[in-house]
Amino acid sequence: MASSPPSADAPRESPGERPAPASERAKDALLTIPRGVAQVDFQPSVWTGLLFIVALFVGGWQFGAFALLGVVTATVTAHLLGVDRDRISMGLEGFNGTLIGVALVLYLGADWSTVPLVIGGAVAGSVLTAAMNAVLTPYDLPTFTAPFCVVALVMAIGAPSYARVWAGHTNTAPPSATDPGTAMTWTDFWHGFFNGVGQVFFQDTWYVGLIFLVGLAVSSPLAAGAAAVSSLIGLLTGWWLGAQAADLGAGLYGYNAVLTGIALTGTFLVLSPAGAVYAVIGAATAAGLTAGLTNLFNVVGGHTLTWPFVLVTWVFLAAVPIFSRIRRPA
Amino acid sequence: MASSPPSADAPRESPGERPAPASERAKDALLTIPRGVAQVDFQPSVWTGLLFIVALFVGGWQFGAFALLGVVTATVTAHLLGVDRDRISMGLEGFNGTLIGVALVLYLGADWSTVPLVIGGAVAGSVLTAAMNAVLTPYDLPTFTAPFCVVALVMAIGAPSYARVWAGHTNTAPPSATDPGTAMTWTDFWHGFFNGVGQVFFQDTWYVGLIFLVGLAVSSPLAAGAAAVSSLIGLLTGWWLGAQAADLGAGLYGYNAVLTGIALTGTFLVLSPAGAVYAVIGAATAAGLTAGLTNLFNVVGGHTLTWPFVLVTWVFLAAVPIFSRIRRPA
Amino acid sequence: MASSPPSADAPRESPGERPAPASERAKDALLTIPRGVAQVDFQPSVWTGLLFIVALFVGGWQFGAFALLGVVTATVTAHLLGVDRDRISMGLEGFNGTLIGVALVLYLGADWSTVPLVIGGAVAGSVLTAAMNAVLTPYDLPTFTAPFCVVALVMAIGAPSYARVWAGHTNTAPPSATDPGTAMTWTDFWHGFFNGVGQVFFQDTWYVGLIFLVGLAVSSPLAAGAAAVSSLIGLLTGWWLGAQAADLGAGLYGYNAVLTGIALTGTFLVLSPAGAVYAVIGAATAAGLTAGLTNLFNVVGGHTLTWPFVLVTWVFLAAVPIFSRIRRPA
Repeated sequence: MASSPPSADAPRESPGERPAPASERAKDALLTIPRGVAQVDFQPSVWTGLLFIVALFVGGWQFGAFALLGVVTATVTAHLLGVDRDRISMGLEGFNGTLIGVALVLYLGADWSTVPLVIGGAVAGSVLTAAMNAVLTPYDLPTFTAPFCVVALVMAIGAPSYARVWAGHTNTAPPSATDPGTAMTWTDFWHGFFNGVGQVFFQDTWYVGLIFLVGLAVSSPLAAGAAAVSSLIGLLTGWWLGAQAADLGAGLYGYNAVLTGIALTGTFLVLSPAGAVYAVIGAATAAGLTAGLTNLFNVVGGHTLTWPFVLVTWVFLAAVPIFSRIRRPA
Repeated sequence: MASSPPSADAPRESPGERPAPASERAKDALLTIPRGVAQVDFQPSVWTGLLFIVALFVGGWQFGAFALLGVVTATVTAHLLGVDRDRISMGLEGFNGTLIGVALVLYLGADWSTVPLVIGGAVAGSVLTAAMNAVLTPYDLPTFTAPFCVVALVMAIGAPSYARVWAGHTNTAPPSATDPGTAMTWTDFWHGFFNGVGQVFFQDTWYVGLIFLVGLAVSSPLAAGAAAVSSLIGLLTGWWLGAQAADLGAGLYGYNAVLTGIALTGTFLVLSPAGAVYAVIGAATAAGLTAGLTNLFNVVGGHTLTWPFVLVTWVFLAAVPIFSRIRRPA
Repeated sequence: MASSPPSADAPRESPGERPAPASERAKDALLTIPRGVAQVDFQPSVWTGLLFIVALFVGGWQFGAFALLGVVTATVTAHLLGVDRDRISMGLEGFNGTLIGVALVLYLGADWSTVPLVIGGAVAGSVLTAAMNAVLTPYDLPTFTAPFCVVALVMAIGAPSYARVWAGHTNTAPPSATDPGTAMTWTDFWHGFFNGVGQVFFQDTWYVGLIFLVGLAVSSPLAAGAAAVSSLIGLLTGWWLGAQAADLGAGLYGYNAVLTGIALTGTFLVLSPAGAVYAVIGAATAAGLTAGLTNLFNVVGGHTLTWPFVLVTWVFLAAVPIFSRIRRPA
């Protein structure tokens, strides 16, 4: 079912191939970590991952440190459970853990008590990744950041019931709570443009977003271009609908558009004029969906996370077989 | 996966067949519109669709106009994206757009600003229809009005966050909010009977419901009979459980039973005595589920829409392969 | 699709086999009832089921009586609809009905008006069981108690809208509502240990939990051991996170861990050291998830039920094909 998962007793390396020396394998294991961070934005590049880690530390030591805790835990869990080595090596088992680390330190505080929660969350995220892959593979859909979204959502909803967990929680009201109004200033606009890229990792400082954009460009100029255009689409969609200006400036309408735009531009779809229009519609839809999901999750103390991107991109990719004008790579 | 979607490079017409002349094709394209409206009630009939459109305009010009905007947008989007021509011609790509138009004008007001929202919603509904078809086809289930339900739900939940969208919104409290009590009058009863048919299109005037019933009878007396009996089942189920009389009179417990009843009586199931009992149980279940979903969606500002019908009918059809007494058409 | 459901016209008994005499078949039909109760804990044993029924009557006559009403209704419905006789005979069509009976009498009161609701709920649960089986079988997942969870959830959410249904409802606030604090006493601890087993059937008296544990041991000492260890894991997980002590003492953090632990220890997974660690992680995850789902459902008046067990166990089983270290029985 799940695209021929590796049989447990099959040899892991083809017979004629000589196993890599230990030093080589240690180096590859180490490089898995930055690749896991880079895969949040669909890039398998070590350099992109290193720049993303730099961006996180610039945003705050706690984001960098807990991101590393998350990516390492998730990757090690996948290894211990026997996930296919290629998936691990490409960083595909690390990116949900990365985001779990960043989200939990943001919502629950940089306390020691957050450490076991990140570890537990990353382990749960690894199991969820495997389960979702089994369910989604028949439809040729990846999990995207859904495992992270599920883990962070249920932990955020449950946290207030647990005295030890809730002790260090931080206020996470959107900027518009203290600064309401729908008139977008020039500062809102250009900050919002960069923050749309940075908010994928919960960062709301413009130059952190810029480092992420540079990191993307190192791996794929096309992805960086799609991210920039999509951040703009998200910003303009939110502005046109009449969203709060402070939230637009914080990039809250941009990051889901950014991820959707990268995913639908050359990454999971064949590039074509019709495909580009399709990607624009997808990015705008993800931005427009943001407020609905935010209101929905607010009721129970959850957060929007990257749910709009996950849901919209699943729908737009699942639809492709019905549309003769749009194609997925073979 | 998705029941052999048309290959993009396959010839659209069989080799020996002569392409229809342009005037013929224009006429067929035009007739797709009423068929799209009629398909809300599973009918592929042009006359039924025309009567439904008349009913909508009798209910209010804005319902007719926005329904047409929705059905045209959805159908054109499907055509542009390259959906199989047969599906489009039967109206199967239009009915979700029809309901999106009616729902949005009801909830957000007959303003110019609602026009682009209906267009955007109908485009999203078309993509969602294709995605859901890809997922549901392996289980031999149609999407029903689920794409409409999803689009209208997320737009209703998100709308208050968008100043431009929310400007013209209307109060949508149920009749029981101003007229509480569970004692059903004779007027509640017979109004409720016709409104159960009309509420499929959000109409709460008894003679509009009557026109819809006549429209159904033109295409299929069986469907009209099933609709009438199911409206009665919904009404009596709600009354027996102790629902608010004003809501019963407005048809709020009837319309999901009506759609479920038509779907399970001869449309997607083979007619049989066991099948008829099964359809009665389904219609009563859809009515009983109404309050639960209404309370659920109320929390976040959503609406019940046709969710009870969609969920109950999916469940009752998906169960059929396990039940040797119930059959689906080959 | 659904693992070769019995063809309706195929002979029900193999040609050479002589049909069992009527007395034999009546006895088997009768034994289906206790088996249906025992299957709540995955046991096909008549003796286990009888002990479980005793435990329910010890907990209160209404729990025993409505459990029997539910299990009989569900089993008869499955028979009338033509479900495969083997499934019925093993009790697999009865356990969701059992829990529907116990839950509804707990939430809606031991009134005559609850009787038709249990019957209606059990019928809906039977149809839902078949539908879920059709959807889950391709992934080789059982429905578990999901049909019960869905039926009880939507009935609990909808109930306040129906005057007749809501008349006899009981207060269902958790013990911590009147007895707050996170300091666990010795009584909380050992009561919580037994109640974790009893709460699977909504029972919060320690000796009722003990009877359930004995009932499990009669059928499978391994299952009883897994239940005991898992109840402890749930208790300690909740305690470590800082849950309310009164809720821990009532077994509210134990029962989902218990069901998850039994399911992942030898029942649906091959026993192995890695599998045991996996089961421990699963049981702890189910306990940790409890608060999140409780908070989520509280918003709309729903209850936690066995949702944490269902969701966690689905995820942990669906993930298995990706993990070479964990195996399912052939």
